[in-house]
Amino acid sequence: MIPKDHPRYQSLVTREHLAECARAGIVSLEGLTSHGRGEAFDYLLGEKTSASALRAEKTAAALLRLAKHPVLSVNGNTAALAAHEIALLQKASGALVEVNLFHRTPERVQQIEAVLRKAGAAVFSGEAERLLPLSHDRAFCRREGMYAADVVLVPLEDGDRCEVLVGMGKKVIAVDLNPLSRTAKTATLTIVDEVTRALPRIAEACTALSDDECRSLVAGLDNRGFLAEAKDEMARRLHALD
Amino acid sequence: MIPKDHPRYQSLVTREHLAECARAGIVSLEGLTSHGRGEAFDYLLGEKTSASALRAEKTAAALLRLAKHPVLSVNGNTAALAAHEIALLQKASGALVEVNLFHRTPERVQQIEAVLRKAGAAVFSGEAERLLPLSHDRAFCRREGMYAADVVLVPLEDGDRCEVLVGMGKKVIAVDLNPLSRTAKTATLTIVDEVTRALPRIAEACTALSDDECRSLVAGLDNRGFLAEAKDEMARRLHALD
Repeated sequence: MIPKDHPRYQSLVTREHLAECARAGIVSLEGLTSHGRGEAFDYLLGEKTSASALRAEKTAAALLRLAKHPVLSVNGNTAALAAHEIALLQKASGALVEVNLFHRTPERVQQIEAVLRKAGAAVFSGEAERLLPLSHDRAFCRREGMYAADVVLVPLEDGDRCEVLVGMGKKVIAVDLNPLSRTAKTATLTIVDEVTRALPRIAEACTALSDDECRSLVAGLDNRGFLAEAKDEMARRLHALD
Repeated sequence: MIPKDHPRYQSLVTREHLAECARAGIVSLEGLTSHGRGEAFDYLLGEKTSASALRAEKTAAALLRLAKHPVLSVNGNTAALAAHEIALLQKASGALVEVNLFHRTPERVQQIEAVLRKAGAAVFSGEAERLLPLSHDRAFCRREGMYAADVVLVPLEDGDRCEVLVGMGKKVIAVDLNPLSRTAKTATLTIVDEVTRALPRIAEACTALSDDECRSLVAGLDNRGFLAEAKDEMARRLHALD
């Protein structure tokens, strides 16, 4: 048991929850290490949504709203941390929800789909094929799902899939706490924020924005600008946190 | 298998080794997350020992050399990553090596002690009692070990024990890649460096320093200065890595 008076109580509870999900097979052991990397960058963000991340979240909502065929891609960590938030965003955006895993087994896919369904998401399942030009199992997706998507949201990406999706002409929205990662630099739009903070804000903006506001946000999209602001924010906090 | 020419080869091999240690029960699942956090900060350090970290390592050697009863506290991650380095530092410093765990079970203590002994360390074992004023199981230590120590080295600390040890009048040397952590700020001396780089450098300085040099290093100890230099280094790299 984690003592309630521990100053890092929430962070430790989340870590324990992920560890339980790893024991259950939903989260991979590598996913636990990835979570730790994210925690460190979030610490540098002060564990809150910055003004520039909020603008990125509104821009993400605009991309989803203007999309013909938006897909939310979910991996083990996202399901473990944010299944309810995915369901919420699905309702607000009308996007498909599809599971895509690096450490892929049929059992893990089913387990993660079950977690999402329990949280209220409608999961696009069906037959997965090796459709993305990747040597590993993230290549598996559905022809009528991610393969056909024009906008894909990839929270907690851990690999080179972002580059491949962009190369296929899709708009990719990444949620990545590391503004230096290849994913962050390759995505059409990178939200440097923690996933459970980011998704509800995107959902809220999906409902609140007018069509004109959506077009204007997308026209002004400057991903390098968002990343530069995130790095500035982290550098500032390195000095402010004393 | 991880290809040897992979740009992140060493990091991936370490991560895989830790995942194996987690399957064996030596590393806790929470320890994998902690490792990920360290990775992120080490990335911001350029994965090398900075000039100021090297000065901190020499100062750590001086503290150990001038101690009457130094103890090296070892947890699961330290044993998994640096058992040989702990044995080396024990030989150079004459310190006791004692296992202290947050996720404590008798089996895990025995496993970790076995890893340390296999690497050549003499482990101070015997009866552990709840001697530190902490609500969790890091409270367990030995009366003639950490409880009686005047200098304690705590690599990869994950909690509030550092504060308690300092409150008991001990000098605490932390090895912590996060210069913002409570441990980093509370310790008598914080080495912001990766543990397998730090420990051999401390061991080398234990052998090389004269008594006068030791006294002079300890007299000049400025932990806030070390932390400020580490933060400057990381902020510089946040902007350099583009």
